[in-house]
Amino acid sequence: MTTPEPKPPNEAEGRFGAEARATLLDLLVWRRDVRRFKPDKLAPGTLERLIGIACLAPSVGFSQPWRFVLVDDAGRRGAVRASFERCNAEALRCQTGERAALYARLKLAGLDEAPSQLAVFADRHTGRGHGLGRLTMPSTIDYSAVMAVHTLWLAARAEGIGLGWVSILDPDGVAAALDVPPTWTFIGYFCVGYPSKEDDAPTLEREGWESRCDPASILFRR
Amino acid sequence: MTTPEPKPPNEAEGRFGAEARATLLDLLVWRRDVRRFKPDKLAPGTLERLIGIACLAPSVGFSQPWRFVLVDDAGRRGAVRASFERCNAEALRCQTGERAALYARLKLAGLDEAPSQLAVFADRHTGRGHGLGRLTMPSTIDYSAVMAVHTLWLAARAEGIGLGWVSILDPDGVAAALDVPPTWTFIGYFCVGYPSKEDDAPTLEREGWESRCDPASILFRR
Repeated sequence: MTTPEPKPPNEAEGRFGAEARATLLDLLVWRRDVRRFKPDKLAPGTLERLIGIACLAPSVGFSQPWRFVLVDDAGRRGAVRASFERCNAEALRCQTGERAALYARLKLAGLDEAPSQLAVFADRHTGRGHGLGRLTMPSTIDYSAVMAVHTLWLAARAEGIGLGWVSILDPDGVAAALDVPPTWTFIGYFCVGYPSKEDDAPTLEREGWESRCDPASILFRR
Repeated sequence: MTTPEPKPPNEAEGRFGAEARATLLDLLVWRRDVRRFKPDKLAPGTLERLIGIACLAPSVGFSQPWRFVLVDDAGRRGAVRASFERCNAEALRCQTGERAALYARLKLAGLDEAPSQLAVFADRHTGRGHGLGRLTMPSTIDYSAVMAVHTLWLAARAEGIGLGWVSILDPDGVAAALDVPPTWTFIGYFCVGYPSKEDDAPTLEREGWESRCDPASILFRR
């Protein structure tokens, strides 16, 4: 087995060419928030390898504040599922009329099917980075963990593995269920596995919940 | 000119093959937080195109809450630069001994050289997404904007364009200097341009500020 050779740098256009740009775009277009999974388990070591890649994400002051918790224990998974059920019922009560009916039809998590589950936290108390870059914006620690999640998401997608972000949860309840240090900030809970299908449009767009907005509408000039 | 054809799906390994995975890994390894820029301007429309790609990022409830503000006005740029100077002087006072000397030598922003500059905000008050997924975790709106930043970062890198995240700023001061709605959350300020060199290691690692940690140290099991 040979290690893939990096492409030689090209002074004119930099290290990456048109094919690399097309690949990245394809990954971004076909990345999805997955809620329907096949039962197939991931091969042993897959998540550990993806987490290793996620550690290439940017972090404020090179603080690397992401904390990945692989959740396998049935009791702990059950506690997270119970939190989701409670929070989702409450969220449904906040919707009205047609929207409530549509909300009730949406499948918003794959907690029963996803073979792998993990939680991600951010450690604002880490000594790594020696505080650089975060004195006025401590939330950049959380942002760093979010970029590690996004990195893992893309790396998983490139292997045909889907990720579903579950945010309809009580953060304190999840932290308690997973017995993590009280100083950690809960970022999200993730279902991971092989998606039951590939798609190039968000589920919420296909189901009529929300449409894609024109980039011009979120661009401002000063 | 022909539009690049997407690779046909391969049932065995999904849509993406070994080459796509190597490309993504290379992008992640060679992405950098850039503080030294060449003076060359970006071609007109470049940032707008990259922001269009950033809109492919995941967002809670498909809320697309990212707000991109291109900053060209010299007065507004000066106000941001002044905020950086003040906050960086304060941050230096929080470092002691050898670390203070090292901190003082670090170049932490390319505000004087970067030809393009933009600020990113998150709109927690957006009606888009109809509140889905964020009732218990309103910060997921901010996280969505962070993932759009990371998406833009990778897309820029694939074009040989560098991005530097400036977080040593007073968020309220920046929001005031840029005259944006008071309900927007400031995520970060970004220098964009062609980097003076390419590198596969973080500046803060090369300068001896912080080392890369073993992924095993941030992985936990429950």
